[in-house]
Amino acid sequence: MSQLGLLPRRAWTALLSQLLRLPCSSCIQAVRCHSQVAGAVLTSQLKAHQEKPNFIIKTPKGTRDLSPQQMVVREKILDLVVSCFKRHGAMGMDTPAFELKEMLTEKYGEGSGLMYDLKDQGGELLSLRYDLTVPFARYLAMNKVKKMKRYHVGKVWRRESPTIVQGRYREFCQCDFDIAGQFDPMIPDAECLKIMCEILNGLQLGDFLIKVNDRRIVDGMFAVCGVPESKFSTICSSIDKLDKMAWKDVRHEMVAKKGLAPEVADRIGDYVQCHGGVSLVEQMFQDPRLSQNKQALEGLGDLKLLFEYLTLFGIAEKISFDLSLARGLDYYTGVIYEAVLLHTPTQAGAEPLSVGSVAAGGRYDGLVGMFDPKGHKVPCVGLSIGVERIFNIVEQRMKTFGEKVRTTETQVLVATPHKNFLQERLKLIAELWDAGIKAEMLYKNNPKLLTQLHYCESTGIPLVVIVGEQELKEGVVKIRSVASREEVSGSSGNRRDKVFLPLPDFLRNMYLLAEKLSSWLIVVEMNKDLLQITIAACEYWMGGQKKGK
Amino acid sequence: MSQLGLLPRRAWTALLSQLLRLPCSSCIQAVRCHSQVAGAVLTSQLKAHQEKPNFIIKTPKGTRDLSPQQMVVREKILDLVVSCFKRHGAMGMDTPAFELKEMLTEKYGEGSGLMYDLKDQGGELLSLRYDLTVPFARYLAMNKVKKMKRYHVGKVWRRESPTIVQGRYREFCQCDFDIAGQFDPMIPDAECLKIMCEILNGLQLGDFLIKVNDRRIVDGMFAVCGVPESKFSTICSSIDKLDKMAWKDVRHEMVAKKGLAPEVADRIGDYVQCHGGVSLVEQMFQDPRLSQNKQALEGLGDLKLLFEYLTLFGIAEKISFDLSLARGLDYYTGVIYEAVLLHTPTQAGAEPLSVGSVAAGGRYDGLVGMFDPKGHKVPCVGLSIGVERIFNIVEQRMKTFGEKVRTTETQVLVATPHKNFLQERLKLIAELWDAGIKAEMLYKNNPKLLTQLHYCESTGIPLVVIVGEQELKEGVVKIRSVASREEVSGSSGNRRDKVFLPLPDFLRNMYLLAEKLSSWLIVVEMNKDLLQITIAACEYWMGGQKKGK
Repeated sequence: MSQLGLLPRRAWTALLSQLLRLPCSSCIQAVRCHSQVAGAVLTSQLKAHQEKPNFIIKTPKGTRDLSPQQMVVREKILDLVVSCFKRHGAMGMDTPAFELKEMLTEKYGEGSGLMYDLKDQGGELLSLRYDLTVPFARYLAMNKVKKMKRYHVGKVWRRESPTIVQGRYREFCQCDFDIAGQFDPMIPDAECLKIMCEILNGLQLGDFLIKVNDRRIVDGMFAVCGVPESKFSTICSSIDKLDKMAWKDVRHEMVAKKGLAPEVADRIGDYVQCHGGVSLVEQMFQDPRLSQNKQALEGLGDLKLLFEYLTLFGIAEKISFDLSLARGLDYYTGVIYEAVLLHTPTQAGAEPLSVGSVAAGGRYDGLVGMFDPKGHKVPCVGLSIGVERIFNIVEQRMKTFGEKVRTTETQVLVATPHKNFLQERLKLIAELWDAGIKAEMLYKNNPKLLTQLHYCESTGIPLVVIVGEQELKEGVVKIRSVASREEVSGSSGNRRDKVFLPLPDFLRNMYLLAEKLSSWLIVVEMNKDLLQITIAACEYWMGGQKKGK
Repeated sequence: MSQLGLLPRRAWTALLSQLLRLPCSSCIQAVRCHSQVAGAVLTSQLKAHQEKPNFIIKTPKGTRDLSPQQMVVREKILDLVVSCFKRHGAMGMDTPAFELKEMLTEKYGEGSGLMYDLKDQGGELLSLRYDLTVPFARYLAMNKVKKMKRYHVGKVWRRESPTIVQGRYREFCQCDFDIAGQFDPMIPDAECLKIMCEILNGLQLGDFLIKVNDRRIVDGMFAVCGVPESKFSTICSSIDKLDKMAWKDVRHEMVAKKGLAPEVADRIGDYVQCHGGVSLVEQMFQDPRLSQNKQALEGLGDLKLLFEYLTLFGIAEKISFDLSLARGLDYYTGVIYEAVLLHTPTQAGAEPLSVGSVAAGGRYDGLVGMFDPKGHKVPCVGLSIGVERIFNIVEQRMKTFGEKVRTTETQVLVATPHKNFLQERLKLIAELWDAGIKAEMLYKNNPKLLTQLHYCESTGIPLVVIVGEQELKEGVVKIRSVASREEVSGSSGNRRDKVFLPLPDFLRNMYLLAEKLSSWLIVVEMNKDLLQITIAACEYWMGGQKKGK
């Protein structure tokens, strides 16, 4: 099959890929941008005079398309997240987009009302998944899996009022990592926090802080402050708003709307304004009220151990024990955490401003048992990365710094300066594809050379392989670097080093040359029907002209 | 931050990754398999004596979870498909899982009844997407994009009676590649067929054939055979069944159920049993009836040109002009194609047996115009890869040959033979993670060494980094190859080559050594708090013992 005789196909491909890496990576260029899509609201407004005024093309409320530009950014974020999950030994997994409705009920508290139900079309009652955690617990129970470290990247759907500026959509992507199984305390929990740090550092989102608390401390705090047990859940919801609302407003809600005694609210107020490191844990151990509560003491004991592990992981300074952290979801039973990005304050000395949660999670030891017919529990702890919000921040940053992305990875355009060269272009491009080279050509019988070169410039293709009358006669093709406009052809004589060495030797030369050379060029020689690939590394081969400039 | 002083972090990481590639790739081992999931029907049957007899944990009808084992196979297939799409210069894109119902109506013919509608919860009427083609056309029209080469990998949903043995699900993944824009005829169409060949060759699914026809030839054939125009669509549906039903049954359906005159059916019968290469195209040009039909002649003219390009691409022998190919979807307007896998016939001389379509597509020049308020057309041609069916074939093949996959990529387990070494393990593993090494440890305070080694064997982790009392005293760690049980430690003296060279030199040595050496070992030395990484390449360093065996 191979027409690339001199080197074995695999070696040849590896070699050329190696070469192509150099011009490619230095060539991040602007490409045509479907900027209509980039905006937030995707309704295509029709004007009054149009023929079909009732017909509005749009995506459903709270959803959006991702344009190729956005897709590149999204993929980069997901790659970084997934490679971190894999670094920590997680396996991949997938579940259906919808579940039997009964699997999802009574798992989300107030969130249940936000589920998308499918129409009853005869058969089962179904709902789109609301998160990836409940399907994971269902999977564990269904398959009687007692131990598993998995990640899952997928879309989830929530019928919330979309406030798109904040990066909240009704359809959004989640990246979850969870550790299921009975283990010694706090070791998996500490790893989850380590993962959050690695990802947030890796994404270079700026300074961040991870707030940590424990559901048992929250409940213990309510108990010792005198919250009636029937009000635990609703007061917990109020407390959860403290990252968006001031204490006095939350207090007002608890007292005026939820009927909490003012002195109870004030006692809570004393606690929820506390945040700090491991010393605050020690301090709470000594707290006259909290230290009387068994649940709270268990939570504090675990947090103390957690901080010990976080110190060994070198991330303790990123973690803040924060008594105001409550987390909305019903299923948490132990440690809970939430990562927030910090803006540099505008005024010196001012408190850093929180720009919202970008990752969160916690321990949920009871959820799997809710699915198991015998109620067998599988303790779990995990985290979820908020991709949409991170995406918005990265996109914003790219806009600010004028960063552009290439939306394709094409390495070579096959072009011709002459008419009636379609056949040669088709033959040549097929050879390139078969060799694993990312190649394009214009779908025209007789495109103009200038059009072809412009296409490269606008899409960021770094190299053009040109075949014309002269080249065909000589059995060569011309290679042109789009950025430098340098050209080389197979007939250019002794400036070329033919490299037909075994791979190790080749690579050795490669790196020696890479230190010395400014540009790499590839010469594709055609000898009859045999396409031979020659690698030519030419240092300043047009140096004379360059100096003249 | 970096505690890996001697080499810059990036160089060090690259270097270690390079090293790790060797032991890793040779270590595809069996891992624990959630085999309950691997089967097709995912209902967890409960026994009569259980406590909650009404509670059945399952996924919705026609859907399934993907276990980690299945996920690895799926990802491999998708990677190959997507890298082919990128090789052809396609950009990525995404659309929401659901669309406004009105966007999807009147696009799929008989398929429309199989759409999943969402419940009307106040707001818009929504349906889950039925394919990726109609959302693509909606995207083009909405954003007024006139030219685009994109791929899209995503789930689609169809309420078909699931016949799971055939790999048909109600939720399934599609991989689409499409070229939108006004170009010279048949160049993009030929590229679509080239892509199908590259993917099917790449997946090594065995011999295959791509059937090609043109909607205009189908319509022309109906016209010249005397099918009334009102019956074109329903007769087309019957013809489409010829890959599953014998001609006499299809004929019976057309005559008895659909009221076609028997002599008309017989005329069709003469055509639809024709298949062949470009010579059949020539033959049909001469056909006394078909050559009278303008539409058919246009289709034949395009097919002739198509075959010319396919020959230049070197794939003409894989393509069969097949007059029985009709394709179910309404929106096709020109060339249509479908790839089928061929089994070697059991009896010599017998016709190769078709095992069903694994990829298909065609030209749809009118679809975008259906969304455009002014009806502006954007010609399109594309293809869709049937991932589920391919997945089933690959999974079956792996079962047959007993191939196993690793579900994690973990390179190193951090282990200890002694009690009270949790702190050292935590510190060490954090260093490895921070250096980009994929590392795990058991979440136990005091795991047994044997348990730790068994974990490596069962999950395919190739290396163990052992830290114990002796190692701690000497400031080293011991490295053990799980497969060969060889060990080396930082204190083993002059058999080690410390490699602290700049990267090019290092790589040069690397490849020289790779030819000579049988095993690679990594030694991690701990000097006080500084973790220094030394690369040791020891040829038969335990050679004496080996020979003795």
